[in-house]
Amino acid sequence: MKNNLKGRHFLTTQDWSVEELEQVFALAAKLKKAKKEGRPTPLLRNKTLYMIFFDASTRTRNSFETGMTQLGGHGIYLSPDKMQISHGENARDTAKVLSRYGEGIAIRHCAYGAGNAYLREVAANAGVPVINMQCDVYHPCQILADYLTIREKFKTTRGLKIGVAWTSAPNYVRPLSVPQSLILLMPRFGLNVTLAYPPEFRLMPEIEEQARKNAKGAGVKFEISHRFEDAFENADVVIPKSWGPLVTTRDTGEGLRLIEKYPSWRCDRERMALGHKRVIYMHPLPADRGREVTDEVIDGPQSVVYDEAENRLHVQKALMALTL
Amino acid sequence: MKNNLKGRHFLTTQDWSVEELEQVFALAAKLKKAKKEGRPTPLLRNKTLYMIFFDASTRTRNSFETGMTQLGGHGIYLSPDKMQISHGENARDTAKVLSRYGEGIAIRHCAYGAGNAYLREVAANAGVPVINMQCDVYHPCQILADYLTIREKFKTTRGLKIGVAWTSAPNYVRPLSVPQSLILLMPRFGLNVTLAYPPEFRLMPEIEEQARKNAKGAGVKFEISHRFEDAFENADVVIPKSWGPLVTTRDTGEGLRLIEKYPSWRCDRERMALGHKRVIYMHPLPADRGREVTDEVIDGPQSVVYDEAENRLHVQKALMALTL
Amino acid sequence: MKNNLKGRHFLTTQDWSVEELEQVFALAAKLKKAKKEGRPTPLLRNKTLYMIFFDASTRTRNSFETGMTQLGGHGIYLSPDKMQISHGENARDTAKVLSRYGEGIAIRHCAYGAGNAYLREVAANAGVPVINMQCDVYHPCQILADYLTIREKFKTTRGLKIGVAWTSAPNYVRPLSVPQSLILLMPRFGLNVTLAYPPEFRLMPEIEEQARKNAKGAGVKFEISHRFEDAFENADVVIPKSWGPLVTTRDTGEGLRLIEKYPSWRCDRERMALGHKRVIYMHPLPADRGREVTDEVIDGPQSVVYDEAENRLHVQKALMALTL
Repeated sequence: MKNNLKGRHFLTTQDWSVEELEQVFALAAKLKKAKKEGRPTPLLRNKTLYMIFFDASTRTRNSFETGMTQLGGHGIYLSPDKMQISHGENARDTAKVLSRYGEGIAIRHCAYGAGNAYLREVAANAGVPVINMQCDVYHPCQILADYLTIREKFKTTRGLKIGVAWTSAPNYVRPLSVPQSLILLMPRFGLNVTLAYPPEFRLMPEIEEQARKNAKGAGVKFEISHRFEDAFENADVVIPKSWGPLVTTRDTGEGLRLIEKYPSWRCDRERMALGHKRVIYMHPLPADRGREVTDEVIDGPQSVVYDEAENRLHVQKALMALTL
Repeated sequence: MKNNLKGRHFLTTQDWSVEELEQVFALAAKLKKAKKEGRPTPLLRNKTLYMIFFDASTRTRNSFETGMTQLGGHGIYLSPDKMQISHGENARDTAKVLSRYGEGIAIRHCAYGAGNAYLREVAANAGVPVINMQCDVYHPCQILADYLTIREKFKTTRGLKIGVAWTSAPNYVRPLSVPQSLILLMPRFGLNVTLAYPPEFRLMPEIEEQARKNAKGAGVKFEISHRFEDAFENADVVIPKSWGPLVTTRDTGEGLRLIEKYPSWRCDRERMALGHKRVIYMHPLPADRGREVTDEVIDGPQSVVYDEAENRLHVQKALMALTL
Repeated sequence: MKNNLKGRHFLTTQDWSVEELEQVFALAAKLKKAKKEGRPTPLLRNKTLYMIFFDASTRTRNSFETGMTQLGGHGIYLSPDKMQISHGENARDTAKVLSRYGEGIAIRHCAYGAGNAYLREVAANAGVPVINMQCDVYHPCQILADYLTIREKFKTTRGLKIGVAWTSAPNYVRPLSVPQSLILLMPRFGLNVTLAYPPEFRLMPEIEEQARKNAKGAGVKFEISHRFEDAFENADVVIPKSWGPLVTTRDTGEGLRLIEKYPSWRCDRERMALGHKRVIYMHPLPADRGREVTDEVIDGPQSVVYDEAENRLHVQKALMALTL
């Protein structure tokens, strides 16, 4: 397996070919097996990944930092309030200086209209790979884990139906990055996608357009519906997940009002029963239990949420080992 | 030495037999010797311990994180305000996800009435060992270090008298976990215990009852007194230490008033003179100098506080090496 | 090369002889070469450095922590608000306890009139080396990196002119430590120093006096001017950098007023043109672009700021490898 990925940024799956992404999945499977068997994999010995978090995290921080440890290196958790970013240091200086010290920079920055721009500015100035740990537009590492999980469950993914559905959860305004990254990647691996949301919760138009092109290029279906159940009917995989009406309004009060307008958009046993009998339930966590999904479903036999969370570790280790 | 401790939680010493605890002390002594001689002990190479701190820490965080480094692994310091625990993630999800990534979870959570319950919920859902770094009820790692220190100083511990005494220190309401863990463990290793506190500062009734049973089972004395000096008279070891009147009142104003009612409960030269001539002074630190103890005593020849602090490192390394 | 530096504190370059500092530069050059060639340098395997930051940091934290990783050890980032320092733990206890666990303590504490005193108290009680990561008086690691950068650019440094100039930047009151450490060290390595500032921005009198002695001892010039251009005329190296009028006033409003009194003290193309044709521009970063320096200069061909930032890593690795 030849590695032509050394030094590459990973800001969105869209920048990488299917063949390049297959290298990640192949190495992820090997690293997962090695971990289960207790075999060391010191592919990044004494190397450093900087992990800059503008937003809170459990899975992302721990999976990246643990991943670096398992590869023999070290992940440094950085919070902008403790850095001189809070003293006005610009993205260019941060990028250029960190590139002189360590081997990679990973960033989470979900502020709508700002996060992706910051990542791209760091990437433009960095001499080392920049990895997107979630921004306002994309969450590519999550979606790699999602796809690996689907492939593990179904062996082959061509022709499967995945339903990506909005759910109603009021506690905070979540980014669009998960559904957007899902609809971009899944068609490229042969899945038919049904995206369901109330009209006010549309995704960024250019992303929906790109997803349509990706589906056409791969010869699969990409459909948008305003009916919750359409995401479930005959589906093999469902990912019901809340996000904010960010394209429609930036007003928090109005946003919360829109969320409360659709309380029945919640995944429950009845909706799961609409799917194929082998349907699996996925969610990137943390889920708003009771609002997004009933305990019965998320803790039930169709749920693969912990396998999905685990796969974050394996795909990210592969990604780092290939690029850093 | 056979290790049947792999995978075991360590929430309280009470769950472990004396023989199991002896395994910890035996390995701690070996690891301490190896460190002094500069010999590497990579027993947990590339392994990860998650350290979740709901409360501030110096000794605990640094001894655990340094311990993981010395064992070849890595400790990740986690603060709930930077995790999605602050976004409502429940203990079950935290436990299940972290268990998929790393090899152990350590938690400090001292909120009265909540800490131990949280630890037990994590332990019930975790696939890896959970270590108690101090909760509202127990501080078992501190007490392992205390016991190791006593054994180092006296060689044999059966028949020694240890005085555990309340002291008056107003700066913050400290948990009951240190005295409670002391009275549970020390009798099991043959020490006679005198516990002294003003009536309002009693410990949790079920813990005092269990301590009484432990003493009876080991054929040693466990006495409760309301006179400060009783903890010192003819003692071989004294641990005078403040805690809050949490069993009596949850009102902060009333609590501080009760603390101020007993200003003479402070360890000084006169009290130390009541002890056996070989008496040692212990304190888990940080001590409230001037209030809990005079500088003369804590910085004097009878004080072993830094040896005690050091032993945190060695017992915890042993504990991790045996369970993770 | 014999190492007689094991166990030595590094609070200021003034405490170390030129020969001792040369050992640092020599090892720094070797470590830099090894990193470029991808050769591992595990000189501090499984060793721990505690990094206590009372103030925000990007370069310092990341260069120290990455340095420890590259040397096979681990740096622990400590923020006093998460430690029991915030519960009144004194410097003595912090020093004595951390010395029992790990191999070195590094501290940044820039509060005027308090930082250096804290470092000295920790050093007096620590059983392991204490490294100054910047205090109110000194920033010796920065200046080691500065000198290494100058030597890399000019090969020999005797007889060069370095201009250290105050600049006008209002965003926050910066410490005196960088210019003070520059004027102390540079004469000892044969550079002629011109220090330029408006009268209200003088440095600590005892430091200026010591710099004068250092220059006399080395047979070079040390001049103080109140004209910005004097730092630039015929200079080989310029370091124009803001600092607060801390010796003159502790009043923030008055301080900001004094800063605004000299808006023309900014490094630009015209000032750079006054220097020797080979003149280089240096700055420890983060620079206040537009106020301290024009983008044209800091991003132009005379600027060596990223090489200077990189050298932080190499000199600090050498320093740690020699002392820890």
